Amino acid sequence: MILRDPVHGVVSFEGENGRVLPRLIDTVEMQRLRRVRALGVASMAFPGAEHSRFAHAIGAAQVMARFLARVEPLAAAMGSPLSAVDHDDALAAALLHDLGHGPLSHLFEEVFPGMHAHELWTSAAILDPDTEVHRALAAAEPEMPSRVERLVHGVHPMPLLARAVSGMLDVDRCDYLLRDSHMTGTRYGLFDLDWLLRSLALEHDDRGPRLAVEGSKGLPAVEGFFLARLFMYQQVYFHKATRAAESVLRSTFRRLADLVADGRVPAGTPEPIAMLARGERISTQAYLSLDDNALWRAVDAWRDDRDDTLAGLAERCGRRDLFKTASLDDIDPELDASIQQELEAIVEAHGYDPRYFAALDVAEVMPFEAPRIPEEGLRVVHAHRPAQALEHASFIIARIADTSFVRRRLVFPAAVREAVTEMLEAQRPGR
Amino acid sequence: MILRDPVHGVVSFEGENGRVLPRLIDTVEMQRLRRVRALGVASMAFPGAEHSRFAHAIGAAQVMARFLARVEPLAAAMGSPLSAVDHDDALAAALLHDLGHGPLSHLFEEVFPGMHAHELWTSAAILDPDTEVHRALAAAEPEMPSRVERLVHGVHPMPLLARAVSGMLDVDRCDYLLRDSHMTGTRYGLFDLDWLLRSLALEHDDRGPRLAVEGSKGLPAVEGFFLARLFMYQQVYFHKATRAAESVLRSTFRRLADLVADGRVPAGTPEPIAMLARGERISTQAYLSLDDNALWRAVDAWRDDRDDTLAGLAERCGRRDLFKTASLDDIDPELDASIQQELEAIVEAHGYDPRYFAALDVAEVMPFEAPRIPEEGLRVVHAHRPAQALEHASFIIARIADTSFVRRRLVFPAAVREAVTEMLEAQRPGR
Amino acid sequence: MILRDPVHGVVSFEGENGRVLPRLIDTVEMQRLRRVRALGVASMAFPGAEHSRFAHAIGAAQVMARFLARVEPLAAAMGSPLSAVDHDDALAAALLHDLGHGPLSHLFEEVFPGMHAHELWTSAAILDPDTEVHRALAAAEPEMPSRVERLVHGVHPMPLLARAVSGMLDVDRCDYLLRDSHMTGTRYGLFDLDWLLRSLALEHDDRGPRLAVEGSKGLPAVEGFFLARLFMYQQVYFHKATRAAESVLRSTFRRLADLVADGRVPAGTPEPIAMLARGERISTQAYLSLDDNALWRAVDAWRDDRDDTLAGLAERCGRRDLFKTASLDDIDPELDASIQQELEAIVEAHGYDPRYFAALDVAEVMPFEAPRIPEEGLRVVHAHRPAQALEHASFIIARIADTSFVRRRLVFPAAVREAVTEMLEAQRPGR
Amino acid sequence: MILRDPVHGVVSFEGENGRVLPRLIDTVEMQRLRRVRALGVASMAFPGAEHSRFAHAIGAAQVMARFLARVEPLAAAMGSPLSAVDHDDALAAALLHDLGHGPLSHLFEEVFPGMHAHELWTSAAILDPDTEVHRALAAAEPEMPSRVERLVHGVHPMPLLARAVSGMLDVDRCDYLLRDSHMTGTRYGLFDLDWLLRSLALEHDDRGPRLAVEGSKGLPAVEGFFLARLFMYQQVYFHKATRAAESVLRSTFRRLADLVADGRVPAGTPEPIAMLARGERISTQAYLSLDDNALWRAVDAWRDDRDDTLAGLAERCGRRDLFKTASLDDIDPELDASIQQELEAIVEAHGYDPRYFAALDVAEVMPFEAPRIPEEGLRVVHAHRPAQALEHASFIIARIADTSFVRRRLVFPAAVREAVTEMLEAQRPGR
Repeated sequence: MILRDPVHGVVSFEGENGRVLPRLIDTVEMQRLRRVRALGVASMAFPGAEHSRFAHAIGAAQVMARFLARVEPLAAAMGSPLSAVDHDDALAAALLHDLGHGPLSHLFEEVFPGMHAHELWTSAAILDPDTEVHRALAAAEPEMPSRVERLVHGVHPMPLLARAVSGMLDVDRCDYLLRDSHMTGTRYGLFDLDWLLRSLALEHDDRGPRLAVEGSKGLPAVEGFFLARLFMYQQVYFHKATRAAESVLRSTFRRLADLVADGRVPAGTPEPIAMLARGERISTQAYLSLDDNALWRAVDAWRDDRDDTLAGLAERCGRRDLFKTASLDDIDPELDASIQQELEAIVEAHGYDPRYFAALDVAEVMPFEAPRIPEEGLRVVHAHRPAQALEHASFIIARIADTSFVRRRLVFPAAVREAVTEMLEAQRPGR
Repeated sequence: MILRDPVHGVVSFEGENGRVLPRLIDTVEMQRLRRVRALGVASMAFPGAEHSRFAHAIGAAQVMARFLARVEPLAAAMGSPLSAVDHDDALAAALLHDLGHGPLSHLFEEVFPGMHAHELWTSAAILDPDTEVHRALAAAEPEMPSRVERLVHGVHPMPLLARAVSGMLDVDRCDYLLRDSHMTGTRYGLFDLDWLLRSLALEHDDRGPRLAVEGSKGLPAVEGFFLARLFMYQQVYFHKATRAAESVLRSTFRRLADLVADGRVPAGTPEPIAMLARGERISTQAYLSLDDNALWRAVDAWRDDRDDTLAGLAERCGRRDLFKTASLDDIDPELDASIQQELEAIVEAHGYDPRYFAALDVAEVMPFEAPRIPEEGLRVVHAHRPAQALEHASFIIARIADTSFVRRRLVFPAAVREAVTEMLEAQRPGR
Repeated sequence: MILRDPVHGVVSFEGENGRVLPRLIDTVEMQRLRRVRALGVASMAFPGAEHSRFAHAIGAAQVMARFLARVEPLAAAMGSPLSAVDHDDALAAALLHDLGHGPLSHLFEEVFPGMHAHELWTSAAILDPDTEVHRALAAAEPEMPSRVERLVHGVHPMPLLARAVSGMLDVDRCDYLLRDSHMTGTRYGLFDLDWLLRSLALEHDDRGPRLAVEGSKGLPAVEGFFLARLFMYQQVYFHKATRAAESVLRSTFRRLADLVADGRVPAGTPEPIAMLARGERISTQAYLSLDDNALWRAVDAWRDDRDDTLAGLAERCGRRDLFKTASLDDIDPELDASIQQELEAIVEAHGYDPRYFAALDVAEVMPFEAPRIPEEGLRVVHAHRPAQALEHASFIIARIADTSFVRRRLVFPAAVREAVTEMLEAQRPGR
Repeated sequence: MILRDPVHGVVSFEGENGRVLPRLIDTVEMQRLRRVRALGVASMAFPGAEHSRFAHAIGAAQVMARFLARVEPLAAAMGSPLSAVDHDDALAAALLHDLGHGPLSHLFEEVFPGMHAHELWTSAAILDPDTEVHRALAAAEPEMPSRVERLVHGVHPMPLLARAVSGMLDVDRCDYLLRDSHMTGTRYGLFDLDWLLRSLALEHDDRGPRLAVEGSKGLPAVEGFFLARLFMYQQVYFHKATRAAESVLRSTFRRLADLVADGRVPAGTPEPIAMLARGERISTQAYLSLDDNALWRAVDAWRDDRDDTLAGLAERCGRRDLFKTASLDDIDPELDASIQQELEAIVEAHGYDPRYFAALDVAEVMPFEAPRIPEEGLRVVHAHRPAQALEHASFIIARIADTSFVRRRLVFPAAVREAVTEMLEAQRPGR
């Protein structure tokens, strides 16, 4: 199986990398990910970002294949070789790490809070004996489904592999930073993967070889990775248009949930959505029937609903008529609560229901979180002197470690823009 | 309106380029193109190629904006300035040129031969007073819809603009070669657009300024463009997996059409599809309700149909279980007909219906077609000597002009591979 | 004049950009810069980095041309248009900013401390009526040489232009970060120049329009620029092999100077070098006769000198037999002086003269220095809220502002490596 | 030894690739190539193209390392493994293939026709027991110098390796097309090396494994390679400014040779040049003392010579005051001789010596030459059908095979441009 990919170029799953991947890729559960966009509604803001979680999953598996090619000889030289079983498990876990992802990015999980997080659905899809993915894994080896399921969640006897699947510098992040950067047309996520892989090293540890990076050459590649992550949050994931689009869609689903709770299921609502809105449990199969297409079809149907709020919000989704935002970044966070109340009053005065048309949106990410147990962190090794923790070795990482990047915004309909601007003007220290 | 794009980087429709484009982009008819993939089923073969006709339309408009920025000062200097009306018409035509495109690329039109070609649906969508696109154009200026509709089809008083919208080197091709190349991860379509635009020149003509290219510097950029086109046909559009995927889908639709003709509409068939299959006329609105999602949903539903052939073909689509191909490129074309008969016999002997499971697939393209009226071609201008036709000035174009690139293949289920290979072996000159 | 460049692609100095640049480029003083490598001895460490200050000067002029194209309409709209004189002065200053640069990068100036800094030689070369550069400028306009000379040093009535020629974000830095990054094959200097230029804005100020950046989109481009600078210092300019190469060459020149001071000029020493070593003044013409070729030829000749130290050092230069380095980054700086003494003792014990074969090498740069007068800094402007200083608006700049990045190293011959490693081991806190 | 390179990124000569290369790279003969620019005077036309033959040699060795990594497992699987000796010989030959290259590109050889071609000087430098290269090779293994010398010229028991060092698709061409393209800033030489290497295959042959290419995927990469070659000749090597610069320099050297033949050696002429001009033999050491610096220094000295013709030509070289050219491409080649006579008359009438100031410049290259012995060509292998010769398998190669690309031009001083244009106008068929 040889593929070409806009991010990684040639992707080949042959030889030792071809033992399980091709069969897994052709399962219906993996193919479903073709219909789940990686960036959810962000493609409203970045029209080129139409790539799916399927392409991302292939990319993550490719990064894992390259990671293994780099690390296996080092581990063998250290007397702790990876087995063929480890190799296959790692590739499968990289490919399947997002298997249970719901439509419309993380938004979907937030809206129906009784629902499982997508990580649990991934487990369910791997462990459920009725899925094709389960059968493909079990056909390779009966214990493989349970091993891969644990590895997806970062549990594995070799910390090296566990962290490569789910860690601060894992194959998931490696692929999505590059891919989202490439496809949005921003260039800020384009860290130097080639050099990063090449500068990986291993350090001895009680529990086996542990991932490290060669100091003299690898430091800027690792720094580049964490800065790329910060930049992508700043520029894409926390972009005002992305957040505004998410806000409209979130309000739409909230209104739907409220209507269902009140006893009416608007026409066009897929049965699994109705069940989730009622807080009922749904089967793995029912969950996996949901994809972006199903959701957008439902939103489309709701444009004709007799509830004006639902219809209006659905209409906004369809026409890309997003909410507006106003930054609170230069305003004292202590004022947030009172400002939010003022916003709700303004919105209500203009005839909108503040439950759905006014929000304080706080987006927060920590670009580098120093590990609580130092041994879990990334170490930097040197030729003629002792190894150091990354956050000590790096000038730039030391300066951002354990600090959150935060964006605070008000979200509201365009019609109240002027009133909101005036209200905020009054909050700013005199000038 | 500023967008970022994986192909063109920063795309800004502001100032003179912002007069009509933003409003057009937000119409429901344009937004529908987000749900029509540019490469149709080719994304089965090239998983990264998930981009939509919407992204392509934006790209074509961006190329047009750059084309106008290059050409307008030249035209003005020649005493034939483009008006603001021309400018807006050109941008609108570039954006809307694919407005009526059906789902699943060109395949959709072939299958229901009574149907309009997508070009006619584009006209319909522009001229129909009920579409948002029509209203947006007419709001700018009452005659704009009819002017833009003609320009989309290459009809305009200024040959310069007509050819830029629909010609051998038009903005449509410029964008799709770059975009398809980029997204498939093949690099063969990446001609040098910057340099091509920069080396455009104008030549005087009875009918006004005519597009030409500066010889000393522009030749390789133009050559690169036509070679990129050849390469993309070789590598992507005529790729065996692309053609095999198209073949499976074509058979699925044929079977559906045959069933409908026999009086039964399989469950899950969208009404407009059923009407098309019966050869009935459908409205513009009904046509525009069709997108990739609608088609894939129907195919999905047909997997449970009681007709085994339809269900089996739909199942193949869903599982990416494509047909196989065998090249006939080293076999005398005169044998094609008899070879096709042999294939049908083999297929039938294995229990398949040859109407749907055997095909002779001939793909043909002319990488450079010398214009019949020499004046319509692209001229190469020089500083100290007379201009020449491109096909005379270029070493490489001269050698491929008016020659077709052809790929002939047999298409069949995997189960008959061995029998087909043996049959073809017998046809080859003795070795 | 149209050129192609590995960094900027097409470079065209035509129309308003063609009034003075082509004539300046063809002067002997500019052509001399073809024989002065931009990175000096760093090409010993980065073999691809063979580019000259000539290519960099062209690049800086090209960045200025793009800067002017962006900024001129903004300034005009603000009622403070740039004149044609300003335009030409800015381009000339960008091109000529390094005119007086000596061979072998900044090293040359350090070695002969009585000598002018290269900035003064640039002034001399512009103001000296006998240079072709002077004549070309004066031919355009009699006052142009003196205006351009002042502008090269950041003195101009419009702060906007002054800062673009010599400021924290000037065309010199813009080009050399990109070019050095590109040519060394490291990718860390590749900030997004296109986007940076596009997000430039102007703010009103008493002294005219002042450079600013649009906050919602330009912040990451500006951040990327300052991070690129930090990375290039970390990876290239402060690279241990670069510093080791510089150290060998510095010792060679020191030995030469000491011999000349003792009354003997080794054979092969160019006369201007001998004069500089004696602390005598040299003419502009004599100075400009020095280039990399002249220096390397001299070093080559010294390999046969009767002074063993000079001959040995020159031999090391010729054979790329560089000194070794040991990092002191994890050792308390208070110990530096005593460690240096220990190093000198080790080196001497091995038979080397510590004046030339032992050094404490401290490299230091401030990636972002907040301006002392806030008005001189870069401002970030927002749509609906007040402007901010860059160091307040940016999460990452705020964290590195006014902090120095430092690399401390010992430099010594390979033969004493083991002894040095042991000595340092003893200094480290117990482990 | 790990290097970074603007073309290949990370270049590492470690492990099996580190056995001989690092020692060879540090020899004085290899380091001399840092002072020989790869493109000779073309950097007058393409100012970024300042790269040296040293960087190219490193690049060719890197391509060979990648070639071996691809081909060795295939050869082993075919039962004809490459030995460690073969591996080292191949890397050494790739690195050293240009060792004897003279300054100023191929021009230097043309001017002194009695001189050896650079290929013979390469042999001399490898075989001469006094060179450091010889000693480094012989230290590895006594027979290595003679084996590597033969391999440099394409003589080796394994045709596979012979052709990789010197063949239609060899590592020399692979590197220089990419490097020259990259550094000139034209993009036409940027074929897809990754994909090309990946699609290499081996075919069985009486004399061992023979290089082939996998048809279904490798064809466009190979086509791209040969087209890149054609484009680079069109755009760079045969560029009018390149040819004009070469013409001026050629005339300068001719005049020098004529003066020496008449008994006077102009001041500043390096002794080896004087000997070559007198047709005397020079030693390998003397030859290797010549580099670009030495030649430019001589040209510089000649600007003050008492012979006006030599001084004037040298002045033109120094000031980049090149000859002008006029294309003859649209004129019947039968007229060339008479046109040349007319040019000489015009030049003479303007007071120039036509021996040095008028030339008919014919540049010719065959982009693809079909091998005379079919077995020596490149074969294209297919999965289910017989292999074919490249020129049969490829649509585009078939159309350019065995056809020469030719550029015919007149070369003359700028002062006669008008007279030449008029003269040529009269030759063109009536219009």
